[in-house]
Amino acid sequence: MAAAVVLGGPAGWWRWHRRVAAMVCSRAMASKTPVGFIGLGNMGNPMAKNLLKHGYPVIAYDVFPEACKEFQDLGAQVTDSPADVAERADRIITMLPSSPNAKEVYTGANGILKKVKKGSLLIDSSTIDPAVSKELAKAVEKMGAVFMDAPVSGGVGAARAGNLTFMVGGVEQEFDAAKELLTCMGSNVVYCGAVGTGQAAKICNNMLLAISMIGTAEAMNLGIRLGLDPKLLAKILNMSSGRCWSSDTYNPVPGVMEGVPSANNYQGGFGTTLMAKDLGLAQISATNTMTPVPLGSQAHQIYRMMCAKGYALKDFSAVFQFLREEETL
Amino acid sequence: MAAAVVLGGPAGWWRWHRRVAAMVCSRAMASKTPVGFIGLGNMGNPMAKNLLKHGYPVIAYDVFPEACKEFQDLGAQVTDSPADVAERADRIITMLPSSPNAKEVYTGANGILKKVKKGSLLIDSSTIDPAVSKELAKAVEKMGAVFMDAPVSGGVGAARAGNLTFMVGGVEQEFDAAKELLTCMGSNVVYCGAVGTGQAAKICNNMLLAISMIGTAEAMNLGIRLGLDPKLLAKILNMSSGRCWSSDTYNPVPGVMEGVPSANNYQGGFGTTLMAKDLGLAQISATNTMTPVPLGSQAHQIYRMMCAKGYALKDFSAVFQFLREEETL
Amino acid sequence: MAAAVVLGGPAGWWRWHRRVAAMVCSRAMASKTPVGFIGLGNMGNPMAKNLLKHGYPVIAYDVFPEACKEFQDLGAQVTDSPADVAERADRIITMLPSSPNAKEVYTGANGILKKVKKGSLLIDSSTIDPAVSKELAKAVEKMGAVFMDAPVSGGVGAARAGNLTFMVGGVEQEFDAAKELLTCMGSNVVYCGAVGTGQAAKICNNMLLAISMIGTAEAMNLGIRLGLDPKLLAKILNMSSGRCWSSDTYNPVPGVMEGVPSANNYQGGFGTTLMAKDLGLAQISATNTMTPVPLGSQAHQIYRMMCAKGYALKDFSAVFQFLREEETL
Amino acid sequence: MAAAVVLGGPAGWWRWHRRVAAMVCSRAMASKTPVGFIGLGNMGNPMAKNLLKHGYPVIAYDVFPEACKEFQDLGAQVTDSPADVAERADRIITMLPSSPNAKEVYTGANGILKKVKKGSLLIDSSTIDPAVSKELAKAVEKMGAVFMDAPVSGGVGAARAGNLTFMVGGVEQEFDAAKELLTCMGSNVVYCGAVGTGQAAKICNNMLLAISMIGTAEAMNLGIRLGLDPKLLAKILNMSSGRCWSSDTYNPVPGVMEGVPSANNYQGGFGTTLMAKDLGLAQISATNTMTPVPLGSQAHQIYRMMCAKGYALKDFSAVFQFLREEETL
Repeated sequence: MAAAVVLGGPAGWWRWHRRVAAMVCSRAMASKTPVGFIGLGNMGNPMAKNLLKHGYPVIAYDVFPEACKEFQDLGAQVTDSPADVAERADRIITMLPSSPNAKEVYTGANGILKKVKKGSLLIDSSTIDPAVSKELAKAVEKMGAVFMDAPVSGGVGAARAGNLTFMVGGVEQEFDAAKELLTCMGSNVVYCGAVGTGQAAKICNNMLLAISMIGTAEAMNLGIRLGLDPKLLAKILNMSSGRCWSSDTYNPVPGVMEGVPSANNYQGGFGTTLMAKDLGLAQISATNTMTPVPLGSQAHQIYRMMCAKGYALKDFSAVFQFLREEETL
Repeated sequence: MAAAVVLGGPAGWWRWHRRVAAMVCSRAMASKTPVGFIGLGNMGNPMAKNLLKHGYPVIAYDVFPEACKEFQDLGAQVTDSPADVAERADRIITMLPSSPNAKEVYTGANGILKKVKKGSLLIDSSTIDPAVSKELAKAVEKMGAVFMDAPVSGGVGAARAGNLTFMVGGVEQEFDAAKELLTCMGSNVVYCGAVGTGQAAKICNNMLLAISMIGTAEAMNLGIRLGLDPKLLAKILNMSSGRCWSSDTYNPVPGVMEGVPSANNYQGGFGTTLMAKDLGLAQISATNTMTPVPLGSQAHQIYRMMCAKGYALKDFSAVFQFLREEETL
Repeated sequence: MAAAVVLGGPAGWWRWHRRVAAMVCSRAMASKTPVGFIGLGNMGNPMAKNLLKHGYPVIAYDVFPEACKEFQDLGAQVTDSPADVAERADRIITMLPSSPNAKEVYTGANGILKKVKKGSLLIDSSTIDPAVSKELAKAVEKMGAVFMDAPVSGGVGAARAGNLTFMVGGVEQEFDAAKELLTCMGSNVVYCGAVGTGQAAKICNNMLLAISMIGTAEAMNLGIRLGLDPKLLAKILNMSSGRCWSSDTYNPVPGVMEGVPSANNYQGGFGTTLMAKDLGLAQISATNTMTPVPLGSQAHQIYRMMCAKGYALKDFSAVFQFLREEETL
Repeated sequence: MAAAVVLGGPAGWWRWHRRVAAMVCSRAMASKTPVGFIGLGNMGNPMAKNLLKHGYPVIAYDVFPEACKEFQDLGAQVTDSPADVAERADRIITMLPSSPNAKEVYTGANGILKKVKKGSLLIDSSTIDPAVSKELAKAVEKMGAVFMDAPVSGGVGAARAGNLTFMVGGVEQEFDAAKELLTCMGSNVVYCGAVGTGQAAKICNNMLLAISMIGTAEAMNLGIRLGLDPKLLAKILNMSSGRCWSSDTYNPVPGVMEGVPSANNYQGGFGTTLMAKDLGLAQISATNTMTPVPLGSQAHQIYRMMCAKGYALKDFSAVFQFLREEETL
């Protein structure tokens, strides 16, 4: 089955084909064919478990063998390389920490593309440079398979609870096939457009989030120093044009809200080091497209400095604490 | 009546005193004593008219005599100086463009303080440096009168419609007296704390607003250049953690929303030059309190540059257009 | 002698007048009339001593009596207020920490202007907002006296050694009279233009200095992380277009140069807290003149954050250390 | 001849070997063997001509055939691909506009590496991401050849005059061999360290240059608005700690210096678009090495905005003009 046929032809046919293949090949698992999963780290681990819970046989691989052990016990097949996964599964999800890792897993010496079957559906949930997603998509297409980028929003907790948000980029006809798998792991699966737009949506959202969070921290801090009560100030902002998710849902000032990281010494939540990583991707995308992002680039620098000042593992709302510290002589 | 008495004593007594005075002095206007209004510009003009509509006799002054003409025709008394206003009214509202103007009107050679009556209530709705509000409050107190800062949120349209928001700083016992007048001109009157906190709340909100707006413009622009559809991107942001007033209520990208300045070539709304002014006040307050505001100060610089590049009179959401322009060789 | 005469008439006459007065009034001190000195802190102390060394009788005042004690022992007359100084000396130098202090010393209840003699020469060596210098100059002129701003460049060491640089703003005809005194304390006395331009020159220089220093720290740090040897990189920059005083004379990287604060754990030199103060003045001047200073304002924020992170008393070249710290998880 | 031998053995032997080959193969050109030159654009054109002038036979290639025409007339051999150049020359210089171009020329379908001879010396004078230089170096080494990065400082004028500066990264034993060629095109050839450090030195210098230039423009503009004469201010800065190449050698304010782009409406010099490109590389390198560069990233954004506002082809000192423009209503 050539990629051209898959892409041009009715997507339904392809899914029907897979379903038929499933009936023939793996009677034991009823109608569900195996799904490959590569990258069983903090996020990948609970995501793969949710696939198992939904009855999908999982063909697992991770560069650290100990990460696979648990899955063996859960009945998953563990393989020796991404290529081996590709040999045994025609739907594969990858969840990797960075662009170089993703390149290696797809195009490396033992990468997926060494043994990928025509018509396979490869979904990358890593958060990486959208330009790299496009490169990978091209290489995958050459092999007659389909690539989609589907980065997630929501942390380890959401991954465990199966209510991640997936932002999906790729050929629209394949979206339903991807959604079938992604809904096992997330409550919200949004189609964003061509390959790379899933990444684009994620990094744009996170860049705006970082800017709003720092802005909220600055405004709250300045207001407090000018004599305003923090709760009252938050209330005023939230009924005015300064309102944002960082002020009304995730306020960074201790004592203003319950149940958010600022109420718990900035533990849990979304780590500063992860925010710095996403802002780095935004920065690289902006540089490559010659897009001015003056506040986005400054936000990147601030989270970078925070990482170097001991805030790496604190929630990103700790920027309030970072800016708040008093001058001392 | 000494200020100490007013401030310490029951506020009700004072309002009763004024009401009695009103009955005696201005039978024609029923129970309403005259209200002074100084500064009849774009904002002051419709505000003063709303006081007239609510039946308050107005004692008017503006440095430009032609600004007063219209009020004479409407039955207001026009005077020659702020001092003259203070002689004839014991409640005065001032609406002035800048800190130096406010200083002049209160403490100048013919300023309010030259003839202010003890127990008078002076409400300054100008947007100025909170440190200047505090200075003025001190000078007013020395004369046995009461000062409150009550800057507004909302533009000329809201001023006409009488639905401005007032953020009020000053002695809490006097808040009801101020509110009686301010509700004639606004739909939302918020008590913020001691003198200067009205200004503080306003500049903190507007600083966060400017940061969020620029952030929204950057995120939308980057997303578009990475291939996302603007409406879809706005939708994704608005259901995610990037959500803010600038993205969901006042989106700066033409074609995303109806009825906002971006749908009308950035006409109307809140001018870039006014935003630059408020950010300048935030900057000065931050400098004086040694508060770091890295994004706030960058936002100030960006609006400053926009003013110099022809955007001064456009709505402040035009920052999208400013950042959007393509590079041309 | 009216100010108008002094300002309009031949400056020579005035100096001659003072010299004559000196001969008549204070035979004991040869031809030198007393000089007032207000503000005997870290900088003022060695400056006033240098005046004494050059044979000028000093009339001293400081808000902290203990600061005066030492001068009493050295033969200076100690007074009870700035007004008293003005009564006894017709040339006065002030060296104060901030704009509010300067306002108090000149225009306060016991300020210089209460008893200043017509024709007196008042030289303010404080580093303050040039707008405040202009205000003070106006008030001084009204009293028939002359005001010049003459902030210094160089720290406590230079003050002791008598080789400060003075940047002087004021009426050009008075410059020689000012220079006569200032050369006792500095090796470089530069006339900058009208009142306020001394301050302007200083804050513009220091803003550019801060920007270059941070830039040098960033470039050196980035180069080192990319594998360059620091000494070699400094050499390359210094023979290229990146060359600046911060790279070739005061390099912030330990091990690159001898005899600079970076070679001594950033002790001595020009403290971060002082740099933050000067950048605050630059920021306020820029805001008031609507001048965009995007890097100047960011430099201000960086030094502000450094002050809050324990660098307040380190030399300002410690920004290298601040940016250099490694990320740790 | 294996790379290991070349790298480990005496560099002299290798040059002798080449000289012998030259004697045998191209008697007509005396002892000089052909040098390949790929990329004959604004910079490559005059550089290749200088090689010809020094008696080196040139094997030329450019993706635009018309760029080669002129070299054919000058006696150079023109080829059809980088691979063909590699077949005929064992020393090759490449001068390309960007990282993707460099990758294509080295590792593309008809790239140098398809036919590179063992022991060849490949010198890349493009300004690209140092991480890409390192990638190329690895790929070249695998083929038994040697790669050096040698970006230039100096523009088209310096390229014509043969006085470029080359910053060279690579194995030190090969530096002399590279220098032999580079001195035909430049007056200054600096060894910087391992592969990639040539690029690193260049982008660090240019980042500091951009920061200093913007800082100089801000300081001069602020000073002028505060009443200082531009020439006097430049003089004061240049004898003070604000001194930098941008203030004393290339002042951006018209009327301050002769013979610089600011004296000629910002024509000639180093284009804003090129500076923006170099700052983009600095940004990517800083992101990849997690190095905070707050002012470097802001400088990048400013030059990016200038490119979008019509300054792309003006000299980068035009940032003074960009910041200078007056606010107009």
